[in-house]
Amino acid sequence: MTRIKDRRTIRKYKPAPIPEALLNQLLEEAMRTPTMGNMQLYSVVATTDPRVKAELAPAHFNQPMVMGAPVVLTFCADFNRVSKWCEQREAEPGYDNFLSFINAMSDTLLFTQNFCTLAEAEGLGTCYLGTTVYMPKDIIRVLQLPRLVFPVATITVGYPDEWPEQNDRLPLKGILHHDVYTDYTPEDIDSIYAYKESLDESKRFIEENNKKTLAQVFTDVRYTKSDNIFMSGTMMEALRMQGFI
Amino acid sequence: MTRIKDRRTIRKYKPAPIPEALLNQLLEEAMRTPTMGNMQLYSVVATTDPRVKAELAPAHFNQPMVMGAPVVLTFCADFNRVSKWCEQREAEPGYDNFLSFINAMSDTLLFTQNFCTLAEAEGLGTCYLGTTVYMPKDIIRVLQLPRLVFPVATITVGYPDEWPEQNDRLPLKGILHHDVYTDYTPEDIDSIYAYKESLDESKRFIEENNKKTLAQVFTDVRYTKSDNIFMSGTMMEALRMQGFI
Repeated sequence: MTRIKDRRTIRKYKPAPIPEALLNQLLEEAMRTPTMGNMQLYSVVATTDPRVKAELAPAHFNQPMVMGAPVVLTFCADFNRVSKWCEQREAEPGYDNFLSFINAMSDTLLFTQNFCTLAEAEGLGTCYLGTTVYMPKDIIRVLQLPRLVFPVATITVGYPDEWPEQNDRLPLKGILHHDVYTDYTPEDIDSIYAYKESLDESKRFIEENNKKTLAQVFTDVRYTKSDNIFMSGTMMEALRMQGFI
Repeated sequence: MTRIKDRRTIRKYKPAPIPEALLNQLLEEAMRTPTMGNMQLYSVVATTDPRVKAELAPAHFNQPMVMGAPVVLTFCADFNRVSKWCEQREAEPGYDNFLSFINAMSDTLLFTQNFCTLAEAEGLGTCYLGTTVYMPKDIIRVLQLPRLVFPVATITVGYPDEWPEQNDRLPLKGILHHDVYTDYTPEDIDSIYAYKESLDESKRFIEENNKKTLAQVFTDVRYTKSDNIFMSGTMMEALRMQGFI
């Protein structure tokens, strides 16, 4: 039973499958998450078939968790179900627009996080794949997502076969503002990032990537402007393809 | 100590303030939530000053929770802090784009949900205000959010002064798909929504709004196409104003 304060991201799993009854129970409990107008604007695709996982893997840059986890859960913003319901009930759905995507994405991510918290409390390990929004068109194709369904989070889940150290966090003062937002002074920034920059791991990242600062590892290697601009375009295209723009 | 499966949204609070040490502890624990590249792309504005709450209230359609809760937490997608850090470290940040907003919004919502789960486990009650993305420009102005900071979720929090019934949920089969997405047949839709439509509350909604079906209450009254189209525009404008488009 892992609590939020003790959690770690788990990337290596034992081969044991997750009992279907357990997975269903966790998803049902997670469905207590509040949603807009109690519409539950999400769907989950639980992929266990190795052939489908192999098709999904490239969309996640072949991160080994996709093949290595017994279950890959793709959490999707879903206005398809509600819209179909409306059409069958003499009601005209008006959810093919950007705000509706944001609303459904919000419902979906809150639900996703509660699923993870519940799964970890049951001794499972999870890994959040941020790659879901990098190449959404490939995921849409492989998972056969119809119009008004959009993948926003992927979680690999299984019984942990590792227990890594917890990684660092910013100090609370770095993220908390009182009453209104107080913008950061240069001194604030130095102080907020001092601990992260002091870590041996950070120094190793700088050296390995032949950079001068840790920030440059982020901007020049891991999350570059050109990648972000390119993927902003493909994300917008995918939203258009799925009818949300 | 409320668990996810037992939770209810709480809209009425006792006047008792939340001890600052408790609020800080809950936020610190919630910071264990995984984020993209461990960048923690969020900030929280904790508003307790009644004058600031009164300014926020109209942006939330004057829902009474804003004034009634001891604390209003506005969770913001934040690339301002990281970008300032990059600029101070000879690194060129490339996060003024749509994908970066989606990444920061994801980090923020997962963090928000874990905060709520932890707060509820400590006996606090929470309410998620979906209105945050309806009139973001007003919230940005009142909370003085700088460029690359965007409000994505507001949580009112306090000690519960009510304990309402849990509301209904769709059956699990309504949201779960195996391996790939299986689109809904008309029979599926009937079956998924049958329980919701059978509730006395649903019948009352139809009658009160003088509609023929429950779906029409959603499309014609609560979440209309014209509102959604209008707010999609203001949301896009606000994203542009904050530098994310």
